Amino acid sequence: MPGYGWISFTTDYGTFDGFAAACHGSIARVAPEVRVIDVTHHVPPADVTRGAAVLAQTAPHLPAAVHLAVVDPGVGTARRGIVLTTPNGLLIGPDNGLLIWAAEALGGITAAHVLDNKDWQLGDVSRTFHGRDLFAPAAARLASGAAPEKAGPEADPATLIRLPDPAVTIGDGWIEAEVLTVDRFGNVQLAADAAALSGLGSDLLINGGVRARRGTTFADVNAGELLVFPDSADRVAIAVNNGRAVVLLSVRPGDTVRITAR
Amino acid sequence: MPGYGWISFTTDYGTFDGFAAACHGSIARVAPEVRVIDVTHHVPPADVTRGAAVLAQTAPHLPAAVHLAVVDPGVGTARRGIVLTTPNGLLIGPDNGLLIWAAEALGGITAAHVLDNKDWQLGDVSRTFHGRDLFAPAAARLASGAAPEKAGPEADPATLIRLPDPAVTIGDGWIEAEVLTVDRFGNVQLAADAAALSGLGSDLLINGGVRARRGTTFADVNAGELLVFPDSADRVAIAVNNGRAVVLLSVRPGDTVRITAR
Amino acid sequence: MPGYGWISFTTDYGTFDGFAAACHGSIARVAPEVRVIDVTHHVPPADVTRGAAVLAQTAPHLPAAVHLAVVDPGVGTARRGIVLTTPNGLLIGPDNGLLIWAAEALGGITAAHVLDNKDWQLGDVSRTFHGRDLFAPAAARLASGAAPEKAGPEADPATLIRLPDPAVTIGDGWIEAEVLTVDRFGNVQLAADAAALSGLGSDLLINGGVRARRGTTFADVNAGELLVFPDSADRVAIAVNNGRAVVLLSVRPGDTVRITAR
Repeated sequence: MPGYGWISFTTDYGTFDGFAAACHGSIARVAPEVRVIDVTHHVPPADVTRGAAVLAQTAPHLPAAVHLAVVDPGVGTARRGIVLTTPNGLLIGPDNGLLIWAAEALGGITAAHVLDNKDWQLGDVSRTFHGRDLFAPAAARLASGAAPEKAGPEADPATLIRLPDPAVTIGDGWIEAEVLTVDRFGNVQLAADAAALSGLGSDLLINGGVRARRGTTFADVNAGELLVFPDSADRVAIAVNNGRAVVLLSVRPGDTVRITAR
Repeated sequence: MPGYGWISFTTDYGTFDGFAAACHGSIARVAPEVRVIDVTHHVPPADVTRGAAVLAQTAPHLPAAVHLAVVDPGVGTARRGIVLTTPNGLLIGPDNGLLIWAAEALGGITAAHVLDNKDWQLGDVSRTFHGRDLFAPAAARLASGAAPEKAGPEADPATLIRLPDPAVTIGDGWIEAEVLTVDRFGNVQLAADAAALSGLGSDLLINGGVRARRGTTFADVNAGELLVFPDSADRVAIAVNNGRAVVLLSVRPGDTVRITAR
Repeated sequence: MPGYGWISFTTDYGTFDGFAAACHGSIARVAPEVRVIDVTHHVPPADVTRGAAVLAQTAPHLPAAVHLAVVDPGVGTARRGIVLTTPNGLLIGPDNGLLIWAAEALGGITAAHVLDNKDWQLGDVSRTFHGRDLFAPAAARLASGAAPEKAGPEADPATLIRLPDPAVTIGDGWIEAEVLTVDRFGNVQLAADAAALSGLGSDLLINGGVRARRGTTFADVNAGELLVFPDSADRVAIAVNNGRAVVLLSVRPGDTVRITAR
């Protein structure tokens, strides 16, 4: 089969309704041979930043694919649909910042196209469900070998909407960084690269008051104690062995956390 | 491959236990070449009406398929298992109203058969898990090309159990309709067809007191304001831009909502 | 295709993050032709017993497969990764008891191997995400035909970590057994085999005070009444018709329940 053969699929649609399934249906109707890996459909509603972070951290571990992502509070407005080309796959979704971190994780944007090929649409296009009517059918075309330039006119990558970069400051013996994600286990991931840990010792203080130790896996500290470690996405993260760091630290995405040597 | 090649799968089994997986297993053991699209497994337990609504709104967007649906509080009793034939696919599940709205959305019932072919069962049939032991293996047979009349004797469609039709009344300048579903985003979908909106102006009142505007997508109103719009299933729906209409209106499925021109 | 062609996949990763998807990616990169059935990703975090019970009750209903399971609070420590061979499939995951009940349900362990073939790893192996970097790629190798002895050195099955067997005592006219699982519907499953019911009459007492009736399906008792029945995994279970037994009995996994004739 020409094309990628794989689509990854990320949304805030949940799995309570049939929305994600309807998009699977659009893909199967256009390109039945293509296979789909669901990244997650549990991005909190309209949380573009969360969707962007999950996709960027997952896409590099997937086969070369068309990455379809829809977290789209601006659906039905003038916001553009876009197709991004990278050395390691394509991305398709709304032009609201959702795709760019993943594009960079896949090697950077080598071309961008606006999605407006009417022949690629499926049925009457609704004003509120572009995932089903526009994005999924186009992803299926691309995954089965259509060239991105068939999607529509080229766009200047400089005109794409970007999310603000999370704040990270690294000093002598300290890191200050935004919380990027909190995962299912309550682990708190900071926006700082894991390399930032090299300047710190093994005894640490979080936000000036909570003691933690540097290590590499949960059992490096006793149950209930805080661990600062390079996580599986190569970021600085904070965990509690046999517990939930997010509860102990009482932080959420966007908050700033300061780690200092003690 | 003869047959449909696709099964869609809708249940109230959740994804916490292995119930949906066991049904996937039954399908794979009988017809490994068939592919499955999960519509949802998060129908609230025993909520046949919710299951029927989700399936009816999703099935038309899937490839031609065998639609397997199991929301089955009467499992193990004398209630029948049925196979419905439509111009655009087959449906299989309990005879409790779950399948009929979807059958109508797929073009109407052209034949109905009772499922009682013992050769199609898998293993000893449990009294409480017909999804795994009866319905999924039969769906696999049908999807790989078995004729519906092999499932069992023909049934008169007039004898099938139907859910009550949701109440919809349309007057001069007003609509009164039952809430059919509330989705993940808190959007409130009414049972009325979107066409019912044509008799109303753009300034509306909900339940006599809450102001709303007619539009086509969320951004047609300001953040926090109410929108009345034709949704992606072609029903009248109510949303709040950047909010949750279900919270603002405090309604649930089965409640009546009145929309009037103001 | 040589090999099993199917992988089943059980974790406590949830579906909120991209963890399960990254493992799907590892499988697709190593063996794109293999197909995956997700058993559940909603094992409560680190609840090895729950994971073991769900897998053991689901695996026998799946096609012959490589059963990949990761509930792994000891990730990154000296705990071993293992591959178990049974007459009806392979199992792969951490050596913490997670796999053994399923291995027994599949006919018993005929060989055990330690997973330490470095050539089977994918990328730099993280210290906290062996599912993605070690277990999923190895499962893909095995599913596409690699022999278990290629995974690493043979292990003596007697050295494998086992979970404690749940307590079950059967007397004259009574059963006392641990709660093994509580499912989505609130049904309470005991560790006792369904055969234990044969010594009891039809009128029962639970924990000395709550009246129940023996039957085979939910409608055998009136709405709101308690039913004791052989469930679809062939265990003694307790349900409330049109209700939730777990709420009425106020028990949880590990608690002891006593059923007596009255």
